[in-house]
Amino acid sequence: MTDALTTRHNEKMRKIKAARDKMMATKTEEKGLIMVHTGAGKGKSSSGFGMIMRCISHGMPAAVVQFIKGNWETGERTFLRERFPEEVRFFVSGEGFTWETQDRERDVAAAQNGWRIAKEQILDPAISFVLLDEINIALRYDYLDIDEVVDFLLTQKPPMTHVCLTGRNAKPELIEAADLVTEMTLLKHPFKEGVKAQKGVEF
Amino acid sequence: MTDALTTRHNEKMRKIKAARDKMMATKTEEKGLIMVHTGAGKGKSSSGFGMIMRCISHGMPAAVVQFIKGNWETGERTFLRERFPEEVRFFVSGEGFTWETQDRERDVAAAQNGWRIAKEQILDPAISFVLLDEINIALRYDYLDIDEVVDFLLTQKPPMTHVCLTGRNAKPELIEAADLVTEMTLLKHPFKEGVKAQKGVEF
Repeated sequence: MTDALTTRHNEKMRKIKAARDKMMATKTEEKGLIMVHTGAGKGKSSSGFGMIMRCISHGMPAAVVQFIKGNWETGERTFLRERFPEEVRFFVSGEGFTWETQDRERDVAAAQNGWRIAKEQILDPAISFVLLDEINIALRYDYLDIDEVVDFLLTQKPPMTHVCLTGRNAKPELIEAADLVTEMTLLKHPFKEGVKAQKGVEF
Repeated sequence: MTDALTTRHNEKMRKIKAARDKMMATKTEEKGLIMVHTGAGKGKSSSGFGMIMRCISHGMPAAVVQFIKGNWETGERTFLRERFPEEVRFFVSGEGFTWETQDRERDVAAAQNGWRIAKEQILDPAISFVLLDEINIALRYDYLDIDEVVDFLLTQKPPMTHVCLTGRNAKPELIEAADLVTEMTLLKHPFKEGVKAQKGVEF
């Protein structure tokens, strides 16, 4: 690399750093966030669990409520229940994907039970971070009332508590209420080419 | 809910289950995947770390190489180094975000060092899953040669080893080579409203 290129690069990086430092100095507010991970792509739940890992590391007590993937044995559930029973409270409301149960009444009851637990955990001052995994599925099928959920989050969530809600097809009301919304978009998926769900990747 | 609605719902769910079972029966291939998490949204790294959590749970040895966020103290790094030194090999190649170092030569050397380590880990038969965190930044600035990286992944990666590459602005060559690509799209971000990066959420 030439000296001129190096100099130009270093100057550009100095400018970016200055702009970034100036921008970051304006970011002083701390608050508990309402976060939504939605879209058809991968990573909605796993990034929620990645944040749980960060919470454990920082000594921030967390809670997880899984709404739908009840009977599916997932790596993260086993991991958290076996290794971090003190740091993370783990609840499962559902009894499997809804197309496994084929019983709407039971699905509704399970979702309502999950939401009752979720509210308790969010209100608990000991808890810093609550992951409501796949709750968007329960909201989409109206197993839970979207207005009640949004109203609770906006009016009763303690100001410093973070809540992360995952699942595809997030309702517009929830997106409107959220502080941070990420859509995971699928650009390419190996299922299309005959590759099955695999350990470590999908579960 | 009326009986008719319940019946209709249950029938629909039975149909979905039948279609899904039929589809899943065709998914028999297992193979090590090349996965890319890109886009401007959140969750690229954290979903990679969520998969690391799954690997630990399944007893699949993993390795992480962090390309850029060298000096930044991140929850997941502390977590994995302190709690799972046996299960996850953790390497840091960079010395901070590139706009922190302001030295292109040093950035290139750090990226090349990271790639050397990455190749060793990918080739190691003891390792099932390799996370190359923020490697896309190094590729974007041409600290690493995209053709060399893609060629290595396609021709030298052991067939059952999973490799996940994260970072915004993934190069088209990498997207073309990958089995699974997810773009994290930002729909809403609290930085815009003066909220700073927070523990457990961003790091």
